[in-house]
Amino acid sequence: MAIFKKVGIVGTGLVGGSLGLALKKKHLARTVVGTSRQEATLARARALRAIDSGATDFDILKGCDLIVLAAPVETIIRDMEKIRRVITGDCIVIDVASTKEKVVAHASTRFARFVGCHPLAGSEKRGIAFARADLFANAPCIITPVKATNRAALSAVTRLWKALGSKPVILAPRTHDRALAYMSHLPHVIAFALMAATPRGYLSLAPQSFRDITRIAGSSPELWNDIFITNKKNIVHSIDAFFTRVRALRAALINNDSRALNRIMTAAQLKRQQSL
Amino acid sequence: MAIFKKVGIVGTGLVGGSLGLALKKKHLARTVVGTSRQEATLARARALRAIDSGATDFDILKGCDLIVLAAPVETIIRDMEKIRRVITGDCIVIDVASTKEKVVAHASTRFARFVGCHPLAGSEKRGIAFARADLFANAPCIITPVKATNRAALSAVTRLWKALGSKPVILAPRTHDRALAYMSHLPHVIAFALMAATPRGYLSLAPQSFRDITRIAGSSPELWNDIFITNKKNIVHSIDAFFTRVRALRAALINNDSRALNRIMTAAQLKRQQSL
Repeated sequence: MAIFKKVGIVGTGLVGGSLGLALKKKHLARTVVGTSRQEATLARARALRAIDSGATDFDILKGCDLIVLAAPVETIIRDMEKIRRVITGDCIVIDVASTKEKVVAHASTRFARFVGCHPLAGSEKRGIAFARADLFANAPCIITPVKATNRAALSAVTRLWKALGSKPVILAPRTHDRALAYMSHLPHVIAFALMAATPRGYLSLAPQSFRDITRIAGSSPELWNDIFITNKKNIVHSIDAFFTRVRALRAALINNDSRALNRIMTAAQLKRQQSL
Repeated sequence: MAIFKKVGIVGTGLVGGSLGLALKKKHLARTVVGTSRQEATLARARALRAIDSGATDFDILKGCDLIVLAAPVETIIRDMEKIRRVITGDCIVIDVASTKEKVVAHASTRFARFVGCHPLAGSEKRGIAFARADLFANAPCIITPVKATNRAALSAVTRLWKALGSKPVILAPRTHDRALAYMSHLPHVIAFALMAATPRGYLSLAPQSFRDITRIAGSSPELWNDIFITNKKNIVHSIDAFFTRVRALRAALINNDSRALNRIMTAAQLKRQQSL
């Protein structure tokens, strides 16, 4: 049974395109339309049946009862006013951006029925070519309502993510951004920095551990610029907390302090076993 | 065709046990014996047919034409003198430790036919329970000869690793330790520190990227204490090079310097694509 009559996806990349595929496959939307800056992306999305039709212009979003903002954060914020102008009736608007405080603050003043969302289901891959109907299956989806959030819209959006196989988790936008600084943004800072620091000549020896730890250094610089800039306060805080622990290990090393090394390693090992 | 008549494995854990399994499976040794501090480990190794017989005493190594030192680095160094006393004839001795300068320096003065080796094939798992006959297949094995190294022994050991499916790479012990500081030891420091820094309450949200980057925080503290202590100079150097890059990203963030962020991320992404 279709939950939505016409869904508009702004940004038919990995996440937007996967959402289109999933909505069609699970018959959750009668029609799916998409917008992108690039005609080629839209053609690809149409060919994959992630969307029924697409346009570079927002006019195609007219008549939607759900619009999904799936572009990089700064692009979402820049285009919000234009999208607001084509919205009709009781359209629900959601975003899927990786940082929430800024987007939610901007969107809540513009859209009557906005619900901030963040499916934890991206990857270092980017673009419609990597879209998959099962991208959201069994992945947590963080939903970030605020006081102004329309309750009927929140409930419809929660149902939507459940229907897509996601596990909805409700968090305040600020809590989301603090948690994701540690769980995703700091690991990306680390991967980029480790890749930058490693002498090129050693890379042919890379064991699996190095490949795994730097995998996300393959992520899109454009996307991550926006994530870093919009969550910089929390990320700087997480970098400093991380530095404190690296410095403790460094000091223990220099002092041949096996007891301190062991204490830090054993606690980290145990924490991981208990929680992941 | 058996290369060796009797192989002795000192430390029948993940790497030692896997070597026993591989030697038997590929008929590269007529007999494989093992030593361990724990009877239970030896019983398990015998049951898995990783060894034909085992003992907690080094006397079982008498008559070996190949001895493999597969215990943690500091244990290897501590037990070297005892092992030297049971060696007879032209026995070749190799180790499989993760740091090489210290072990090779100690072993070269004690064993006439010693060859330092480091198969890049470990994992965060430890112990005989995780041993696999194909652990070394397609993995690089770094071999670290020095001036004193017996050429016939070097050639036999190189043949052995090839027969096990490994890709031998020759490096000086010092170069090995510098490279592995970046390729393995620093990633472990990072994983332990990241795990320590992350507030426990956020861990239920862990996306795949966080799971991947902290996987090796599950590694054995005992093993890693030895690796860290025996390679501390190079590891501290690599930590400092890494810090410099994290600080550059941190400064770019604070200054909203998207150009600098982009430059660092794009270079890291490209370097990874070209080399891994």
